Amino acid sequence: MTELALAVRSGDRRALARAISLVESHSSDARALLADLWQHTAVCRVIGLTGAPGVGKSTLVDRLARTYARTGRRVGVLAIDPSSPFSGGALLGDRIRMDDPDPRVFIRSLATRGHLGGVNRALGGAIALMAAAGYDLVLVETVGAGQSEVEIMSHADLTVVVLMPGLGDDIQANKAGILEIGDLFVVNKADLPGADLTVREIRSMLGLVDKERARLPITKTIATSGEGLDALMAAIDAFGRSPQEQARQHQRRLQQADHRLSEALAELVVEDIRTAAGAGHWQAAVERIAGRSIDPEGAARELLRPPVEEA
Amino acid sequence: MTELALAVRSGDRRALARAISLVESHSSDARALLADLWQHTAVCRVIGLTGAPGVGKSTLVDRLARTYARTGRRVGVLAIDPSSPFSGGALLGDRIRMDDPDPRVFIRSLATRGHLGGVNRALGGAIALMAAAGYDLVLVETVGAGQSEVEIMSHADLTVVVLMPGLGDDIQANKAGILEIGDLFVVNKADLPGADLTVREIRSMLGLVDKERARLPITKTIATSGEGLDALMAAIDAFGRSPQEQARQHQRRLQQADHRLSEALAELVVEDIRTAAGAGHWQAAVERIAGRSIDPEGAARELLRPPVEEA
Repeated sequence: MTELALAVRSGDRRALARAISLVESHSSDARALLADLWQHTAVCRVIGLTGAPGVGKSTLVDRLARTYARTGRRVGVLAIDPSSPFSGGALLGDRIRMDDPDPRVFIRSLATRGHLGGVNRALGGAIALMAAAGYDLVLVETVGAGQSEVEIMSHADLTVVVLMPGLGDDIQANKAGILEIGDLFVVNKADLPGADLTVREIRSMLGLVDKERARLPITKTIATSGEGLDALMAAIDAFGRSPQEQARQHQRRLQQADHRLSEALAELVVEDIRTAAGAGHWQAAVERIAGRSIDPEGAARELLRPPVEEA
Repeated sequence: MTELALAVRSGDRRALARAISLVESHSSDARALLADLWQHTAVCRVIGLTGAPGVGKSTLVDRLARTYARTGRRVGVLAIDPSSPFSGGALLGDRIRMDDPDPRVFIRSLATRGHLGGVNRALGGAIALMAAAGYDLVLVETVGAGQSEVEIMSHADLTVVVLMPGLGDDIQANKAGILEIGDLFVVNKADLPGADLTVREIRSMLGLVDKERARLPITKTIATSGEGLDALMAAIDAFGRSPQEQARQHQRRLQQADHRLSEALAELVVEDIRTAAGAGHWQAAVERIAGRSIDPEGAARELLRPPVEEA
């Protein structure tokens, strides 16, 4: 095991921060590190929290992290920052307030940087690192329910969808999708008018999806005061206890592993082929695709099986 | 060329709809179809429109499509529906109102269905099909500025970011990212108070990104009445005329082609390896990854270079 891997294992926060940066930049050192640490990444519960901007997710995640920490658990927080493909980091400023150091809480923003599938892989790596560093829980916070969020949630053992009273249908346009990815629902800012109505709406919309979902827990919280947090934590703890839920979680973990195997293969092989083809050949293929003289799959097939050269 | 390819080329709307469904389902027929049609997909301008829910994007896209159609151009509209990973289609209902048939406008929702990288590939295919079917313009509408939107915008020749007055910073949390992907900005619902303030805010935020961006066009529209549409269309038409912009667009198209080549390669090769490994071996690898006895990359390497068998 490398020095960095050992330092991560020992719980060294700086080492963990450095390791996550490596994973974020997709460096080859990161791969070796993850391979080293993989066997130590099993015992960690991953909770995804998602919801529209403005529903108070960050405050709720803060509270949850601190409250879990107070029960003696070590809690990692990964905030996915969807905002900036280039400079990455609008949420970062937001998160600084959370940085008054509780030694059992480790908070980190992951920027997406517009990398194709980039967050997804960085997130998997960052979760694995936190698990290897001995964190018992990882809270993954992300905005909305776009494609990326669905992928992000595929890393979670359970997904908490955060809503608030009186957000118009317009703003919660993603509601239908969000209802399908959630295992547990929270109506935050429950001191605002209409909280109970929102609970009933969610309940009836869940019923439209299917009968089983109509029974999913919906709790009310006021993250700023901490009200309702106990009930939410109880619901989180209770989730995954039934044999059906356990079977579903096992299935999810297999699916994640399948994805990660495909990803790892694709990354290895495409790199190999790109290298084997040489920069000139690769660029020529790219230019022919852009110039519409060959389609991407045709060009890919050519790179895989180069035409027989004449003697 | 297959019958379906010929029908798409001839502008047959039903054939186009059927072809897009094939692309959406990632069928192997779709690949053959795209290979057939690829050489006919060059002359089409792709305009991406993005922005938070509630800013009036759909109405604006409707208006733009109809107005362009009135100038004799054929316009395709692709609405990316980020909502439902499973049933796919919250926006679909929304779009039906657009379906009163102007023969020069073709509207289609693409559901994301939670497929890893799925929208991205389906979108590229759908755009290519519309181009092959003779559409002069394709408007791609998507919500927000998450990771997926950045990828989606990589298909566009120019990206229009739609905002509205008085949306709090909270709601427009993605603003920083959105400012970096936009080529052109629209403050819609400009009859609401604060429209000019929003224009100034965008201008000054663009200035923070870099000096060149501070000069990007910002127009005001009221999509419901059509006000400001002419100025927006003029800005769209003017975009890409300067040598710098043209160089940038060429660069973008090469990047897109590079992505698509990598994707096509990954898809071909991962499928080949999965088949060659056999379902049993593949599943065994997946289970070892999930059980933490090997990391994804290690398992991928094993599948690529199976250990030498003993005689």
